[in-house]
Amino acid sequence: MSNKFELNKDFVEELLILIEKKDEKLIVNRLKGIHAADIADIIEILEHEKANFLFDIIDNPKSADIIVELDDDSRESILKTLSPKKIANKFIKNLESDNAADVISELSDDKKEEVLSHLNNKEKVSDINELLNYNENSAGSLMAIELIKVNKNWPTVECVREMRKQASNIKNIHTIYVTDDNNKLCGLLSLKKLLVTEKSTIIKSIINTNYIAVKTDDDNEFVANLMNKYNLVVVPVVDNNNILVGRITIDDILSYVKEEAEKDFQIASGISEDIELNDSLINITRARLPWLIVGLIGGLFGAKVIGVFDLNSNYELAFFIPLIAAMAGNVGVQSAAIIVQSIANNSIKSDDTFSRLFKEFRVGILNGLICSIIIYGLTFVFGYGHNICITVSISLFSVILFAALFGTLTPLILNKYKIDPALATGPFITTFNDIIGLIIYFSIGQTLLS
Amino acid sequence: MSNKFELNKDFVEELLILIEKKDEKLIVNRLKGIHAADIADIIEILEHEKANFLFDIIDNPKSADIIVELDDDSRESILKTLSPKKIANKFIKNLESDNAADVISELSDDKKEEVLSHLNNKEKVSDINELLNYNENSAGSLMAIELIKVNKNWPTVECVREMRKQASNIKNIHTIYVTDDNNKLCGLLSLKKLLVTEKSTIIKSIINTNYIAVKTDDDNEFVANLMNKYNLVVVPVVDNNNILVGRITIDDILSYVKEEAEKDFQIASGISEDIELNDSLINITRARLPWLIVGLIGGLFGAKVIGVFDLNSNYELAFFIPLIAAMAGNVGVQSAAIIVQSIANNSIKSDDTFSRLFKEFRVGILNGLICSIIIYGLTFVFGYGHNICITVSISLFSVILFAALFGTLTPLILNKYKIDPALATGPFITTFNDIIGLIIYFSIGQTLLS
Repeated sequence: MSNKFELNKDFVEELLILIEKKDEKLIVNRLKGIHAADIADIIEILEHEKANFLFDIIDNPKSADIIVELDDDSRESILKTLSPKKIANKFIKNLESDNAADVISELSDDKKEEVLSHLNNKEKVSDINELLNYNENSAGSLMAIELIKVNKNWPTVECVREMRKQASNIKNIHTIYVTDDNNKLCGLLSLKKLLVTEKSTIIKSIINTNYIAVKTDDDNEFVANLMNKYNLVVVPVVDNNNILVGRITIDDILSYVKEEAEKDFQIASGISEDIELNDSLINITRARLPWLIVGLIGGLFGAKVIGVFDLNSNYELAFFIPLIAAMAGNVGVQSAAIIVQSIANNSIKSDDTFSRLFKEFRVGILNGLICSIIIYGLTFVFGYGHNICITVSISLFSVILFAALFGTLTPLILNKYKIDPALATGPFITTFNDIIGLIIYFSIGQTLLS
Repeated sequence: MSNKFELNKDFVEELLILIEKKDEKLIVNRLKGIHAADIADIIEILEHEKANFLFDIIDNPKSADIIVELDDDSRESILKTLSPKKIANKFIKNLESDNAADVISELSDDKKEEVLSHLNNKEKVSDINELLNYNENSAGSLMAIELIKVNKNWPTVECVREMRKQASNIKNIHTIYVTDDNNKLCGLLSLKKLLVTEKSTIIKSIINTNYIAVKTDDDNEFVANLMNKYNLVVVPVVDNNNILVGRITIDDILSYVKEEAEKDFQIASGISEDIELNDSLINITRARLPWLIVGLIGGLFGAKVIGVFDLNSNYELAFFIPLIAAMAGNVGVQSAAIIVQSIANNSIKSDDTFSRLFKEFRVGILNGLICSIIIYGLTFVFGYGHNICITVSISLFSVILFAALFGTLTPLILNKYKIDPALATGPFITTFNDIIGLIIYFSIGQTLLS
């Protein structure tokens, strides 16, 4: 049935009682047919000792699926207490190489070695070691090594035989990869094609050679954009000699894209670590405090800037401090956001900097003109003195123009130095623009009013 | 080869020259083997007339693939100038029902009717009409209708025969759907299983009945979270009677997730329409101006608030206006962002409101205490008067606490009234918090200093 997968509250509550009672038999019975991802959700809300108890009584292949689905914190806490031998037998032996490498990568170097020493399958050990060596942000680290590979000179009947042999290791087959005698990738064969073709046909006559592949060192974002652009469900990974080494499926890319989007959103919102709603008070505070302190220090600078000017005799200038600061921040964030998205979508080239700035210059002038005319009119209507109206209006124009240019330039520069450009949409840019905005405002004010 | 897909600059430049010369034969020759998504990229940078020319000379099935890949603006401009008959023959006839419906949905109602009247395939017309009727945010609107469907009582050999017949309409087969005599979904059959099973085996004995399906009116976000959680590449869609009506593949979900993430990021950055780097000056300004005007009006309110207090005799209070305003904004955005993400990930229940607020209350107290102690120390060291130090410190604490609660509550309320909660991470919350922050600050200041 279609909604077997929905864990209901009653079910979870009953299970928690059974776990309390340590009723092994009933628990195992209840968990039959429940998806590993759902069991992982339950384990994430259990205390450490109870979580360990559950892992003890669930059989090994299912335990392995569950450990993959757990969030990082819970997984770390489970792995910490288990012996290397148990980790090897319970998890690693039952996982495809990419998931096995993900789990192992979270262990200390010593423990890694020990876990691997408990595996008898030498090929798997070398696969895992290979995967562990790839840069964490590269296609190599995302790929699975298990795939169905056939020789282009075989007849299709041989291909089906080979598939039956290889297929036992692999959960989902999307495509069959066709290689030459040197393991170089030469084409793809769809299962559909295989099913509808004569048995004696030689494979190379029915393969698709107009395929897309990625290299092990291509970065994740590139792979994600590629799979999205070309609507690929799975993409083969080759090394620099075009030798087939793995494949990346789109479900891994979907997780990656979701995580990246969340990370960018958090950075832009001034949250410095990946946190979730259920994290502890301390974790949440730790993630939020750094940017608040940046804001504090920025605020103190702002106080110094204002203090330099003779506010006493022009105290009305103070009325528009929030307006100037807010507009500087808003414009800066807008400008930066457009650049950050273009970088993420690969639609910006590094030699575009000047044309970007020029366009933003024009947008800044247009927005600045409109806003400064509006504010001149409104302040005039509200009866502020003419000098104040003029000062606010000219300052606003200048601040908008500066913030637009600075907001554009910052993410481009960060990106050039391989720093996440999303930082430029967060409190950093608003704080900095606040201060510059105030300097511009008070400089103009001082000049016009004195 | 693996990098056939990378359009290089020289290629594009050569093509642009050929288009200038209207050299049909050479253009068609050059575009052979180039992916529709890449041709779409080129068309997006062409003037309208040249884009039309390209569509004229490219054959119909390829044109259809290209129109699907175009961005909304370019697609709209192409569709506007083509006759209903041409749209039907060139695009709609060559597309699967879901893509056909996407293209048609962008036409005016009259034109829709006319386009459909040019299709001879009555089944396709009814499929498209059905798809057009689903809510834009529902699984029904995301699904494709074409799929491979077999009866559970058939032997596998019959299944393969049926597949050959059905498969010609479908680009990628991921799963075979097994239904009973009433078209109700009863299980899934993988191609792998089919390939490795005896021909006389009855299908129902080898199907997977522990599958996950979604309903036509489930919303897109639910489907995306489900496919992500359970690592599904494709999911069947059923109606309320469990009758199989379509399937959703993960590549559509990936596009959806990317678009949603971009939209949230833009909203949070104060950009009100979906814009891209290459959009016109007017479009970019139009997308950015609304939130700037909100900021302006907020700033004027701020000026009024400050004006109410006797700043003249306590002008030093003005020094810390930027600090108070910035901190109110930063804390509010942080709090809102955590809630917005939880809502997006489905990890928050509507009855959680109180516990969420209580947690945020504690986070607010902790962050507020730390920040106010720091600011007390720093202002003291910098030699501001004791009354000022105390005022700023107490105000900061109050403002942080208020902003945390308000930042938490706003997205929860917006979500309850079906408004995108991401709005709460944008300029709206910073502007509002600015004003409330100032009121708190000056009220405390007035009380302590007078």
